[in-house]
Amino acid sequence: MSIKLNDNYNNAKKSYLFSEIGRRVRTYREAHPDSNVISLGIGDVTLPLTPTVIAALHSATDEMSKKETFRGYAPEYGYDFARDAIVSHYAEYGVTLSPDEIFVSDGAKSDLGNIVEIFGDNEVLIPDPVYPVNYDSNVMSGRRISFINATKENNFLPMPDELPRRSMIIYMCSPNNPTGAVYSKEQLKKWVSFARETESVIIFDSAYEAYISGNYPHSIYEVDGAKSCAIEICSLSKTAGFTGVRFAWTVMPSELIINGVQLAQMWARRQATKFNGVSYIIQRAAAAALSPEGMAECRELVSYYMKNASILSSVLKEKGIWYTGGVSSPYLWLKCPDGYDSWSFFDYLLNNAEVVGTPGSGFGAQGEGYFRLTSFGSREATEEAASRLRRVL
Amino acid sequence: MSIKLNDNYNNAKKSYLFSEIGRRVRTYREAHPDSNVISLGIGDVTLPLTPTVIAALHSATDEMSKKETFRGYAPEYGYDFARDAIVSHYAEYGVTLSPDEIFVSDGAKSDLGNIVEIFGDNEVLIPDPVYPVNYDSNVMSGRRISFINATKENNFLPMPDELPRRSMIIYMCSPNNPTGAVYSKEQLKKWVSFARETESVIIFDSAYEAYISGNYPHSIYEVDGAKSCAIEICSLSKTAGFTGVRFAWTVMPSELIINGVQLAQMWARRQATKFNGVSYIIQRAAAAALSPEGMAECRELVSYYMKNASILSSVLKEKGIWYTGGVSSPYLWLKCPDGYDSWSFFDYLLNNAEVVGTPGSGFGAQGEGYFRLTSFGSREATEEAASRLRRVL
Repeated sequence: MSIKLNDNYNNAKKSYLFSEIGRRVRTYREAHPDSNVISLGIGDVTLPLTPTVIAALHSATDEMSKKETFRGYAPEYGYDFARDAIVSHYAEYGVTLSPDEIFVSDGAKSDLGNIVEIFGDNEVLIPDPVYPVNYDSNVMSGRRISFINATKENNFLPMPDELPRRSMIIYMCSPNNPTGAVYSKEQLKKWVSFARETESVIIFDSAYEAYISGNYPHSIYEVDGAKSCAIEICSLSKTAGFTGVRFAWTVMPSELIINGVQLAQMWARRQATKFNGVSYIIQRAAAAALSPEGMAECRELVSYYMKNASILSSVLKEKGIWYTGGVSSPYLWLKCPDGYDSWSFFDYLLNNAEVVGTPGSGFGAQGEGYFRLTSFGSREATEEAASRLRRVL
Repeated sequence: MSIKLNDNYNNAKKSYLFSEIGRRVRTYREAHPDSNVISLGIGDVTLPLTPTVIAALHSATDEMSKKETFRGYAPEYGYDFARDAIVSHYAEYGVTLSPDEIFVSDGAKSDLGNIVEIFGDNEVLIPDPVYPVNYDSNVMSGRRISFINATKENNFLPMPDELPRRSMIIYMCSPNNPTGAVYSKEQLKKWVSFARETESVIIFDSAYEAYISGNYPHSIYEVDGAKSCAIEICSLSKTAGFTGVRFAWTVMPSELIINGVQLAQMWARRQATKFNGVSYIIQRAAAAALSPEGMAECRELVSYYMKNASILSSVLKEKGIWYTGGVSSPYLWLKCPDGYDSWSFFDYLLNNAEVVGTPGSGFGAQGEGYFRLTSFGSREATEEAASRLRRVL
């Protein structure tokens, strides 16, 4: 006689990837008190918020200090000004959405984790390697998971050609975390066709869309027909340096209907019941980031980080190390040299260069033998890391 | 062939209580363009944030504007300064907690909704009437729900004496939303004994603890033994006027262990996987609210609202209308006069006094014939509402 727990948690891997990295770095630092470890591991930004965003935070704070302009509970799905700003952002990519198809939240991680709830017991198709949240949140709710392999052979861009023709929940992320690979419009068209044909639903993570250069889709809705088969989840974390601010959104197109049920209505119900809106101050900051002035500043943040990417790319090219990403993505995904596996390469770099990256195997079995570097460090740290890598590789 | 949805959503009531209230008010306003409706309905605060909180928001914003003091991803369970501030808050009530037993979040509603996930298929015991989130989030995950009736006879404070002796997840809220009733320490002791004896888990919502006057427990952990059987969820929404700011926390004591599993570890896993921390700026604001200066200001907010409560109470006393709450709680829970049911009394007050309250039946079957008024309006609006109520009751 006692309470039953959710036993599916036993099947989730013990330690979250980044906790294990943190543990190894702490152990190293304790053993080497004079060390100077540079982290190109976790994908966290380092540049401060931009002037337009800072001004909006101050001004919204002032509003909250006066009775006349104070705001209590926010509308559950976001203030109109925030939803409108997101709609305008999509319009720049030729995508027409209605504000009531936008659901504002505190993070893409929250939405990717919580979205599982509105579905029943389906087969879930997850690329390998993958952002761990997508795998873990399905394991923790006992879903049946199938993998589609992203490999060097398919340029880490798996396609549906050989998949069984049945309904699935399909996770996609482009530009990809962790591999930095980006789908072309032609490739996304094939995925949308597959999803429509099999009555599958795509959950499309576009959190890195701001890093795209060239003619790649920023949104899956740039593909005709995607609105009837795809949910899109995006964030300002990487676009505007909001990792410590927290603002994201989920797009649930009104055309996305399964057996007569509009998924937007289910998500609306989920959010109205288990979420109470995003801070007014933060929504004002987000709208400022999405304004024309704000976006111009965001583009500067992105160029800064992409210059870091090119500094790191040069070393890999020089050393003849195979990699993908680093163009249209802040991540470089490299093949560990000299037959190292991911964690032993992690230890090698930590011990010999005091540079921290992310072991590819932490993102799935197909990531074994690969390694992720991020461009989100400062210029100085990135240049120093590059020169150390040049020495030890 | 198509994706399966979470069919439990079909069992959730169609329209969330406050949406229905909003709908009726809009309809009334459209029919009466010159109306002056006063809302004492939804429990949303109206006073601005206090000076200490405003200063902290500005100062944290300034930190985010400079490279040297910018903060990216927050620690998943909260910054040490925020967790420490919460620990100190509990110390004032004689409750000793460790910072790693505190999990910071964006809202009590989120935590109350998400907590369901860490449990398996248990019997869930919910008081009737109840805060709708607790009922809905269990319906939406297909849990077996039993009710314990809160009635005029037990002063809306149901006790476990006649419950079957078996393990359950037990929801409690004191001071209660919606009834304003407050458990004494003796009563909470009985609940803790029951939970320990039956190996049940109590989920204790203390969001209104700041409104307590007199010798009632602010935290369930004021009762010996509660740490081995109770989770506590609290929020700054009502304490510091944070409904539009978003800051709350869940306490998972290390002693809370079920079949060898520490619930804190499961919640840690849930939050690390599906949540990415609270905005740095907001955590600074929360720590400021919880500081001695901040708490002094919060007590002024609380007294302001409690003065409103006494203005409304006077009318009910004068008219001989039975009610509970209004002392140690911002809510007044009254018996609808003249045999009105809850929604017809809602319509009566809307049409005759242009005063909006919340129909008790929206909180459960036992709420039928009752009605909730809140003290969160401005003084002017509350006085005007009181004089209109005096006229029509």
